[in-house]
Amino acid sequence: MHRRDLIKLGAATLAAGFEPALIASAAALAPSSTIEQWGFFEVSLSGPSTGNPFKDITLTARFTLEHRTVQVIGFYDGEGIYRIRFMPDAPGHWTYVTASSSPQLAGKTGAFTCSPPTTSGNHGPVTVAQEFHFQYADGVRYFPFGTTTYAYLFSSDEDAKLSLEGMKSYFNKTRICVLPKPLGVDKEKQILPFPRSGASNDLTRFNPAYFQLLEKRLLDLQKYNIEADLILFHPYDAWGYKNMGSDADDFYLRYAIARFSAFRNVWWSIANEYDLVKTKTMSDWDRFFRITVAEDPYSHLRSIHHSGPIYDNTKSWVTHASLQRYDFEKTAERRAAWRKPILYDEIQYEGDVDRRWGNLSAEEMTHRFWLAIVNGAYASHGEVFLSDTGESSWSDAGRLRGESAPRIAYLRALIEKITKLGLTAPETAYYLNAGTPNELYLYYFDYHRPARYDFPLPASVNFSATLVDPYNMTSTLVPGTSSGKSRIALPNKPYQAIIFQKVSDNHNKSTDAAKPDIPA
Amino acid sequence: MHRRDLIKLGAATLAAGFEPALIASAAALAPSSTIEQWGFFEVSLSGPSTGNPFKDITLTARFTLEHRTVQVIGFYDGEGIYRIRFMPDAPGHWTYVTASSSPQLAGKTGAFTCSPPTTSGNHGPVTVAQEFHFQYADGVRYFPFGTTTYAYLFSSDEDAKLSLEGMKSYFNKTRICVLPKPLGVDKEKQILPFPRSGASNDLTRFNPAYFQLLEKRLLDLQKYNIEADLILFHPYDAWGYKNMGSDADDFYLRYAIARFSAFRNVWWSIANEYDLVKTKTMSDWDRFFRITVAEDPYSHLRSIHHSGPIYDNTKSWVTHASLQRYDFEKTAERRAAWRKPILYDEIQYEGDVDRRWGNLSAEEMTHRFWLAIVNGAYASHGEVFLSDTGESSWSDAGRLRGESAPRIAYLRALIEKITKLGLTAPETAYYLNAGTPNELYLYYFDYHRPARYDFPLPASVNFSATLVDPYNMTSTLVPGTSSGKSRIALPNKPYQAIIFQKVSDNHNKSTDAAKPDIPA
Repeated sequence: MHRRDLIKLGAATLAAGFEPALIASAAALAPSSTIEQWGFFEVSLSGPSTGNPFKDITLTARFTLEHRTVQVIGFYDGEGIYRIRFMPDAPGHWTYVTASSSPQLAGKTGAFTCSPPTTSGNHGPVTVAQEFHFQYADGVRYFPFGTTTYAYLFSSDEDAKLSLEGMKSYFNKTRICVLPKPLGVDKEKQILPFPRSGASNDLTRFNPAYFQLLEKRLLDLQKYNIEADLILFHPYDAWGYKNMGSDADDFYLRYAIARFSAFRNVWWSIANEYDLVKTKTMSDWDRFFRITVAEDPYSHLRSIHHSGPIYDNTKSWVTHASLQRYDFEKTAERRAAWRKPILYDEIQYEGDVDRRWGNLSAEEMTHRFWLAIVNGAYASHGEVFLSDTGESSWSDAGRLRGESAPRIAYLRALIEKITKLGLTAPETAYYLNAGTPNELYLYYFDYHRPARYDFPLPASVNFSATLVDPYNMTSTLVPGTSSGKSRIALPNKPYQAIIFQKVSDNHNKSTDAAKPDIPA
Repeated sequence: MHRRDLIKLGAATLAAGFEPALIASAAALAPSSTIEQWGFFEVSLSGPSTGNPFKDITLTARFTLEHRTVQVIGFYDGEGIYRIRFMPDAPGHWTYVTASSSPQLAGKTGAFTCSPPTTSGNHGPVTVAQEFHFQYADGVRYFPFGTTTYAYLFSSDEDAKLSLEGMKSYFNKTRICVLPKPLGVDKEKQILPFPRSGASNDLTRFNPAYFQLLEKRLLDLQKYNIEADLILFHPYDAWGYKNMGSDADDFYLRYAIARFSAFRNVWWSIANEYDLVKTKTMSDWDRFFRITVAEDPYSHLRSIHHSGPIYDNTKSWVTHASLQRYDFEKTAERRAAWRKPILYDEIQYEGDVDRRWGNLSAEEMTHRFWLAIVNGAYASHGEVFLSDTGESSWSDAGRLRGESAPRIAYLRALIEKITKLGLTAPETAYYLNAGTPNELYLYYFDYHRPARYDFPLPASVNFSATLVDPYNMTSTLVPGTSSGKSRIALPNKPYQAIIFQKVSDNHNKSTDAAKPDIPA
């Protein structure tokens, strides 16, 4: 490999505007460099810049660790630069060799050492765990408490900074669009993914600066351990991108996968409100899933978000359901039907705009998160408030103005504290609860406000009881321990919770199984 | 007619414990007495007291006004006294003649003059009006805002008095059981409808004192214009009354109809939670309806209340649906299916007990009433709070302790003020509203809290706008008038309402129809 062909990652990412701190783990790449596990390795090569390199040149590389070989696809980044990105998933000595339709790019070889993770918070990509839940690749549990910032990736640095400030304090996932949506300014002045002349798109080429901006933002999210639920297609189009034709769709999709899949915090959301994209058919959506499965070497999470009819989430390429619903009481039947994790990714927005979906109180948003959790599922936040000059939405990047976010973060911290396993709701419960039999029971009383309740706890275990006020964010330990049927006085108001956690075995009682929570 | 045969109503009702004030309208009955329209006329006759007069003796009377004759059925009231009751529905000179299997009771004749109503609040019995609503027989609109006091009729005078105190301040209807339910005291010490010896019921006779007590309570309700939704069968039995067999069922039902149907404030609720009475079949329920239609000369309102499966409310004998549901969003489809008024008669209870149905906050109860109303239906209140000594329920007679009742009365007063017609919800509405096109629009924003909204009012009418806070019971007039698409600032909190009322025609605008409430 000619030294001149290799442009160090440090220089490349700096050129794209990456902050130096973010690339520390992968910086100073040399043929014998060290990259942390699930870090970001990039080979940059100089090649042809004539014709249409996006279309004309093929480029792949095979990365090998001992007996294993992973093939990844490279892409053209403009100005004669080609890149191949790779996220190593196992420590050891990796080597690679390129292949290309261009002799200039073919047969390049190199090597690097993959170390265990060194960056704080690097647990690898998120995967499905125990059928209905999630974990990072290193086995650390991940509970999605996400938000929605559709325009974050392509909005102004100022707006994106404000948006990130809000996200990093409260959320560990966000839903964001890869293709642009109108930002309320002159739509022709927005940075766009394809070259545009007047009202005409050149769909045979990309605008590398657009994607470089997105990647900078993706790394910003990664820095704060925020998963990027990348929406690949959506109906909020002002430039004709929802009607490009299937060749251009696939061309774009493959390019996005080639660019983004080496980022460990990427999830693929094939579409937002797929059923509102009237220019595509179900076979298009299925094909996008198949392409994603084929071209993403890391099997990042895959879902598709609907508005009306829910996509058939039993299809093998769907890793989890991404729903626009708030009928959480149907979670059990959905789990039974799909056998996959369920994310209620749009449960309406906290805010004050005039559309029905955009004016939840902070109380209602908090309430919906609790309902999702005690039904054994997860939820996503969103926010949209009127500005002085008209409509403005934090979801579209900007300052966080609502009051539910800290309550959601409070719930997240609670869940992360009380369980390493995901919560499962029993099939029959008199009052909503979720947990782990004989270990943990989290009750959420919804609109109910009994003065007291005889909790049907197993008699073989001693439990601590903690009263939780979800909106006021207070936890109050009940003195003593509880075992068997236990009467506990409850606050005289709705939307309260109580957590029972195992303290010890109760050797005074014969072992018995947890009773279903149905009082006589 | 022998003067001795006629025991004056005044004396009879006083003997049963009726307060003198209540019988003023029908007192001083003489052969040529005057009874007000929808008042209470009673013929009392002395007859055989040997054998089983309840079973052995038939007694009817034919009441005639000009060309019209109404046949009514009499009953044995114990101690050799037989009664025939009649509610005249038209002014004029009425005559009657009795028929009986006993020569002592047959062929008795008499007459009275029926005057227009003289008692304040006497508008006659309630009937269905305009398909989905109600009115009194005199055409005055009646909007049911009811409560639930199952044990009111047979509870202690002290409890009943407390219960009535609560009801009379807030409600114009209550659901009450005719057959007893356990009152928490020794069940054998309760007053019972059938003679009982040890654990054995004599189902061939009645205990007149039981029914006399009920009638006293019915008149107390009537005094305060409270409709008595009489539950004829129910599953809350401690004496074997839910398993009497069909002969005894029918015998009891006919006796109840003979005794109660002349009270103008009676409605027939064939059963409460009919599907929980496992000893009866659907053909039993249908038969009870048919008997009620046949034996009640006044066609009082008829419904049947369920727990799980809803009775087929399309059946001709059902006058309105009495539901145990709070899925108000299904009202439109139910109206379309049944073409009858819908009463959500059990929407759970305000209270603090441990059962799921018994611990709503006052806010939630108030909210549910508003949802019922803006969906074009009606609702009933109920209450159950823990006492110091255990469970006690105002629904079962006693002091009113919750805080929703004044809010419900506030809504009732509002509805009575703004419309003489019932409210109808449009088939498609962006935000929940009900009213009368071009006259009245009542919006209830549920959990939504838009900072403002562009209300799609018709341009041909000028409207006043009044902001209503349902829980705080405040109404605030918005300055000026609104016409056509009208932007109005709204309070920054959920569960708020706004009322648009026609002030004048807007002659500046061309006449147009009200637009469906769906913003572009």
